[in-house]
Amino acid sequence: MLKNDLILRAARGQDVERTPVWLMRQAGRILPEYRKVREKAKDFVTFVKTPELAAEVTVQPVDILGVDAAIIFSDILVIPEAMGLPYKMIEAKGPFFEKTIKTEKEVEQLRVAAGEDLKYVTDAIKLAKKELNGRVPLIGFAGAPWTIFAYMIEGSGSKTFSQAKKMLYTNPKLSHSLLQKITDSTINYLNAQILAGADLIQIFDSWAGILSPEQYNEFSLQYISQICDAVTNVPKIVFAKDAFFARKEISKLKCDVIGLDWTMDIAESKMLIGNNKTLQGNADPCLLYSDLPTIKKETEKMLQAFGPKRHIANLGHGLYPDTDKEKVKFFVDTIKEFRF
Amino acid sequence: MLKNDLILRAARGQDVERTPVWLMRQAGRILPEYRKVREKAKDFVTFVKTPELAAEVTVQPVDILGVDAAIIFSDILVIPEAMGLPYKMIEAKGPFFEKTIKTEKEVEQLRVAAGEDLKYVTDAIKLAKKELNGRVPLIGFAGAPWTIFAYMIEGSGSKTFSQAKKMLYTNPKLSHSLLQKITDSTINYLNAQILAGADLIQIFDSWAGILSPEQYNEFSLQYISQICDAVTNVPKIVFAKDAFFARKEISKLKCDVIGLDWTMDIAESKMLIGNNKTLQGNADPCLLYSDLPTIKKETEKMLQAFGPKRHIANLGHGLYPDTDKEKVKFFVDTIKEFRF
Repeated sequence: MLKNDLILRAARGQDVERTPVWLMRQAGRILPEYRKVREKAKDFVTFVKTPELAAEVTVQPVDILGVDAAIIFSDILVIPEAMGLPYKMIEAKGPFFEKTIKTEKEVEQLRVAAGEDLKYVTDAIKLAKKELNGRVPLIGFAGAPWTIFAYMIEGSGSKTFSQAKKMLYTNPKLSHSLLQKITDSTINYLNAQILAGADLIQIFDSWAGILSPEQYNEFSLQYISQICDAVTNVPKIVFAKDAFFARKEISKLKCDVIGLDWTMDIAESKMLIGNNKTLQGNADPCLLYSDLPTIKKETEKMLQAFGPKRHIANLGHGLYPDTDKEKVKFFVDTIKEFRF
Repeated sequence: MLKNDLILRAARGQDVERTPVWLMRQAGRILPEYRKVREKAKDFVTFVKTPELAAEVTVQPVDILGVDAAIIFSDILVIPEAMGLPYKMIEAKGPFFEKTIKTEKEVEQLRVAAGEDLKYVTDAIKLAKKELNGRVPLIGFAGAPWTIFAYMIEGSGSKTFSQAKKMLYTNPKLSHSLLQKITDSTINYLNAQILAGADLIQIFDSWAGILSPEQYNEFSLQYISQICDAVTNVPKIVFAKDAFFARKEISKLKCDVIGLDWTMDIAESKMLIGNNKTLQGNADPCLLYSDLPTIKKETEKMLQAFGPKRHIANLGHGLYPDTDKEKVKFFVDTIKEFRF
């Protein structure tokens, strides 16, 4: 039994006493407490793979920031690794894959990941659930297949992901077979997270916004749709960053919550998406650089625009690492104190 | 007298025999002929500052690709340099400013650039016009004030430009005074380009898409609007990359052409913008990685969607450097051979 189920109720469209809030990348570098735990692991991938450490930083923001949900500390790139394509995290640069996917043979050689391949994540979930002891729900997550594909082809972060997009144009057959394999792995992974105790799940399509609407339908949305159909029992959040053009299509998925970023007008998004979905977001992470009166004013304006029902407050992207922890806490408190 | 004024007529909404075409970054690394000239200068900034070399690469794509306009080879960051904030171009990394703007005193110390401060650009325009000898129009250009501001504060390229955005939130007064100084410089600069012979001009707002709609109005659009009001006599193109949310507002500017990127649906954009503006774009640069039948099919689909009037064909972003020159030429030829 959860003591605070505000986010679950908001996700289902039920009444809530106040708007619930959590923050993307809340378990992260903005917390000195996180940085201290991070030092215990020799590198980022080891950190992610150590359930005790992952569980510890998962719970920290609940204690320190007072958010209404924890999100399991992990990385979207655990999926390629479980499929047979390992990565490193390079300080100040981001993820790097020594080997990338170039041929259909290489796609065939990849495994479909099973839930057990990611036991370190499900173990972390179990530990975090125990530590949370019903205080708030725990969010599980995965990257959307297109975003995972983009890294597996490109081999690193990129402004354009032109190599990954080149693959869509030059070898749609390979692209679809890789996307399907990622999708099957992701379904297994998310179902394992739910079995381990995740109370809701989020699909992050971080690189949604670099595809044309047509390509997005063909190479991203249909795979997210498969995941939404196959993963049941808990509410599902789909966050397709920058995919303003897909809001109407995303509203047709079997998901409960749709994430918005700060470029997406709230009233327009509500109109496009309709009343059957909860919206999540959408403050600019840079708002948290402002002084307290500005944070308060803009946050309350956002809450008013979303209204009292079917809203989960969040940022429109992950917290930036140089954000002042006290301002993050003030943002959370502003939301928790606000009443319609 | 211009022998080919298709782009000017399309910009003004007049009838054209066929859709005209030019490409952002057409004078660039995709051409071996460009790379050969580039080697003559010791670094990128010197290259930009040598009128003979800049004029030579400006004309190349007219000869080699058969495009319907030349665009003066230069860089948007000549403006900060002319204002007193120099930059370097670091190979494979992009622009870098040793000094950035942090205080109001530093803004005060900047000059408003005069046309004469950028004599190397106007000299290059004169040389290029002479070499073009009326074959096609010459496009002049500048960065939008917000995009220039972003580099002057951030000091380099960035995925989030969080430091530049932090300045908007924490010191709107400094932000506005710097934006005004950039705007005044840009007006002088564009008017000097027109005096030197530019037949139309484009304003590039490369980082438009990272602002909220509200911030975009306050910190970008009002300055672009000042430029559109102050720069007269030639058609003006405004290209605000990723600013899907601002299409309606941009349509109210005193400009003739609005650039679209490939995430923006053509029919929806026409509806938002109305019939009084010409649209430019919007193929995905990655389309040019495809085989020829795919390039042909997608290009013709794009032309059909824009229709026979008020369209200037282009990409939705600059050409990517690893694009095959023959495929670029095929894209141009497909457009030139197409008839409604």
